[in-house]
Amino acid sequence: MTTSKTTAPADGLTHFDATGQAHMVDVGDKQETHRIAVASGQIRMKPETLAIILAGSAKKGDVLGIARIAAIMGAKRTSDLVPLCHPLALTRVAVDFETNEATSTVHCRAQVETFGKTGVEMEALTAVQIGLLTVYDMCKAVDRGMVMGEIRVMEKHGGKSGDWSVTS
Amino acid sequence: MTTSKTTAPADGLTHFDATGQAHMVDVGDKQETHRIAVASGQIRMKPETLAIILAGSAKKGDVLGIARIAAIMGAKRTSDLVPLCHPLALTRVAVDFETNEATSTVHCRAQVETFGKTGVEMEALTAVQIGLLTVYDMCKAVDRGMVMGEIRVMEKHGGKSGDWSVTS
Amino acid sequence: MTTSKTTAPADGLTHFDATGQAHMVDVGDKQETHRIAVASGQIRMKPETLAIILAGSAKKGDVLGIARIAAIMGAKRTSDLVPLCHPLALTRVAVDFETNEATSTVHCRAQVETFGKTGVEMEALTAVQIGLLTVYDMCKAVDRGMVMGEIRVMEKHGGKSGDWSVTS
Amino acid sequence: MTTSKTTAPADGLTHFDATGQAHMVDVGDKQETHRIAVASGQIRMKPETLAIILAGSAKKGDVLGIARIAAIMGAKRTSDLVPLCHPLALTRVAVDFETNEATSTVHCRAQVETFGKTGVEMEALTAVQIGLLTVYDMCKAVDRGMVMGEIRVMEKHGGKSGDWSVTS
Amino acid sequence: MTTSKTTAPADGLTHFDATGQAHMVDVGDKQETHRIAVASGQIRMKPETLAIILAGSAKKGDVLGIARIAAIMGAKRTSDLVPLCHPLALTRVAVDFETNEATSTVHCRAQVETFGKTGVEMEALTAVQIGLLTVYDMCKAVDRGMVMGEIRVMEKHGGKSGDWSVTS
Amino acid sequence: MTTSKTTAPADGLTHFDATGQAHMVDVGDKQETHRIAVASGQIRMKPETLAIILAGSAKKGDVLGIARIAAIMGAKRTSDLVPLCHPLALTRVAVDFETNEATSTVHCRAQVETFGKTGVEMEALTAVQIGLLTVYDMCKAVDRGMVMGEIRVMEKHGGKSGDWSVTS
Repeated sequence: MTTSKTTAPADGLTHFDATGQAHMVDVGDKQETHRIAVASGQIRMKPETLAIILAGSAKKGDVLGIARIAAIMGAKRTSDLVPLCHPLALTRVAVDFETNEATSTVHCRAQVETFGKTGVEMEALTAVQIGLLTVYDMCKAVDRGMVMGEIRVMEKHGGKSGDWSVTS
Repeated sequence: MTTSKTTAPADGLTHFDATGQAHMVDVGDKQETHRIAVASGQIRMKPETLAIILAGSAKKGDVLGIARIAAIMGAKRTSDLVPLCHPLALTRVAVDFETNEATSTVHCRAQVETFGKTGVEMEALTAVQIGLLTVYDMCKAVDRGMVMGEIRVMEKHGGKSGDWSVTS
Repeated sequence: MTTSKTTAPADGLTHFDATGQAHMVDVGDKQETHRIAVASGQIRMKPETLAIILAGSAKKGDVLGIARIAAIMGAKRTSDLVPLCHPLALTRVAVDFETNEATSTVHCRAQVETFGKTGVEMEALTAVQIGLLTVYDMCKAVDRGMVMGEIRVMEKHGGKSGDWSVTS
Repeated sequence: MTTSKTTAPADGLTHFDATGQAHMVDVGDKQETHRIAVASGQIRMKPETLAIILAGSAKKGDVLGIARIAAIMGAKRTSDLVPLCHPLALTRVAVDFETNEATSTVHCRAQVETFGKTGVEMEALTAVQIGLLTVYDMCKAVDRGMVMGEIRVMEKHGGKSGDWSVTS
Repeated sequence: MTTSKTTAPADGLTHFDATGQAHMVDVGDKQETHRIAVASGQIRMKPETLAIILAGSAKKGDVLGIARIAAIMGAKRTSDLVPLCHPLALTRVAVDFETNEATSTVHCRAQVETFGKTGVEMEALTAVQIGLLTVYDMCKAVDRGMVMGEIRVMEKHGGKSGDWSVTS
Repeated sequence: MTTSKTTAPADGLTHFDATGQAHMVDVGDKQETHRIAVASGQIRMKPETLAIILAGSAKKGDVLGIARIAAIMGAKRTSDLVPLCHPLALTRVAVDFETNEATSTVHCRAQVETFGKTGVEMEALTAVQIGLLTVYDMCKAVDRGMVMGEIRVMEKHGGKSGDWSVTS
């Protein structure tokens, strides 16, 4: 075969080969281990918008219930959206929303798991992004100025690099 | 026909009908106008990560070039991802990245346009989200703690509600 | 141009040309009119399964709310799924569920609208199918023997053939 | 990690956690076994419509051949369509159609197999649904009143719950 | 608005702006006209492989019928696959195959039409590519060395640039 | 179970069963081995078009960088596009472009790998096709007459049939 094995580039960005070309990195030799990633983020809104969401969750017009479904479905589309992500058979996706009236924010937290050769941080982040986007979409008729932020990986487990969690 | 026309719910969330059920809202009677939306957001990282991105943009390993493509393609997938979004024939998508070494951030700005019955704020936000996700993916091997934020609509034009821009 | 215009085949199946080859039929000369289609269907289950659904709709575990979202998203994927369907910019999708304890069934009804050159019967039927599939998926842990049926177009409006409704 | 393991809810609907929130259920600890599911369904039409289909299958205008392809491709899209379905690497999809002139129906039967942690009932049902939808689409120009029904799982094999088949 | 209008770059590649960044070019001001594109291509194989295809088309095992469906469906996915393509509501897709025993080739020809602001050359080319890929897939068990080639646009009509056809 | 095992048809086309019906062939009993496929192809253009590409690759307007991303993403969509392809969890995708000024061509070469039950020839070919399509799209404003060709599998490794490479 004429293509030599992937060589990690000098600067540590594994999505590029030694000549600087993007590729979907070779994970064929990595171990299949149980992998978990947790990501989170938030959306900040007017207090009256949050009040409408809270009213809806209690009875009808369930903004967060719909955002949860969108987030779960979004996690499954990650490798379609992020160019160099490997397709993965996810074994679990759980998405939680919490509301904070003091800061007038909705917090989203996604936990994704698989048993495979690569981690699921991107899937967890995608779930959070699509979940927050859907909250925005559902509420934009009353509040165009909502801001999404603090979207990050919180912890990961499994794989060669082992456990990691944000230090805050 | 037995289904009565959509009635806006009391709380202003147009994605729910008068009985609180989610629907893709009727836009059949809306005008086809030129619609523009601009969204933006950022990703904060370690200075050394930003340095690698800046080096790559100048020659090989073009993180931001790849993120731009992902953002443009993401805008086209919006109605697949956000449950109640209408499918739209976009007429323009432009995505810019700017880097700020003082704050160690990459800023993404997406402008989306169409000539149609609904606005393109969600498409612009999706472009920004997928663009930032791709930057995260490309750099996560060297910096897992990157944080995405300040993701919001900056301005919109066209449609019944006319022009709007963030006041900051 | 060497390809002659589509000629309707002798047997009336417009998805085949005069030589019997499948094609996506030419609708370029059709009028853009307001088009509406309503489809419906049902899923039959054990009374105790329906009781669980009814309990969930009232508070948590909202089977029908999730099925409604899946149905709406499914309508948007119709032209990806049905080979010779034209892609269409839907202007409205509304999905209702009704439960009937006497017959132990959940009924699904979808109304889809567009302003375009072809009808939206397939989109309405796809919404019903995916809505019922999702009810099945959510309840299969307690009732594998559920049966879906009576899935049909109920009425359509707009286009050259005008109004039509099922006579029953 | 802060998220506790999935606890089966009291009512047996495993797609909801103990607090009633939807999730893609954790299958990480399930065995990878050979799993098979068979689903079936039918579409009822006017005798003259069935006659056209039967004529086409014999020579040109092959309605059932196209519906078979759509059904197979539909099975592969299941986890994109049904919100809480796990993505699965299918190892076999076979779809058969039979026609019954006495009842003026076309019967569709799909058998799907995988070697994995969850069953393939949803994939088999999706194949049947999309197969029947495509028959409807191909014939609707001559028969709008066709009705789809008797769509159900016929048998399943593999997994913790072992073999199951419909008792009728 | 802060983003200046797209300026054509000096080298004529309209998919890049004046600063060399890729974008989905602004077509908002272009006329909606009837647009047609025809593309073609071929796949070369062993004579005995072509003999099998020819036998199948006559009765069972219809390679070209399946490839035609894949080609039509592929045309609808063009804007998902080609990064800077605009999504378009196609109004017609027709795909023909011809076989040539003298050269042991199968020729594929796709005609795509829309009424819109951009042309459909990419959709016609995608249809041809996916059609030929499917022929390869169906026959690869007996002939791995098949070669696809001569894939090109043959003619286009409509739009500002008017009619064009290959001169050969 | 009522469906008998797949029997290879007399003519060797494994995508059809013994009765000539298309199916996604059963690979459940095949070994999971490391599988590699390499495909290649080219696009021929005017020398001045190639000159623009070469200028862009050196600094801005990176046609080949964008085509590489499209090719990698295309490889991941193969089972959505080719009707009877099995979905596969790819472990590596690498795409290289080479330019030849003497023949005024751009050559694309894709190497795809997985650890699974079926080969990845189709994924490698799809990557090449989408890569070349994207080059066409990026350059069509200056050169409509470009021709794609010589698209073929170059070598494969792994699986029951073992190693194979083109003899030329």
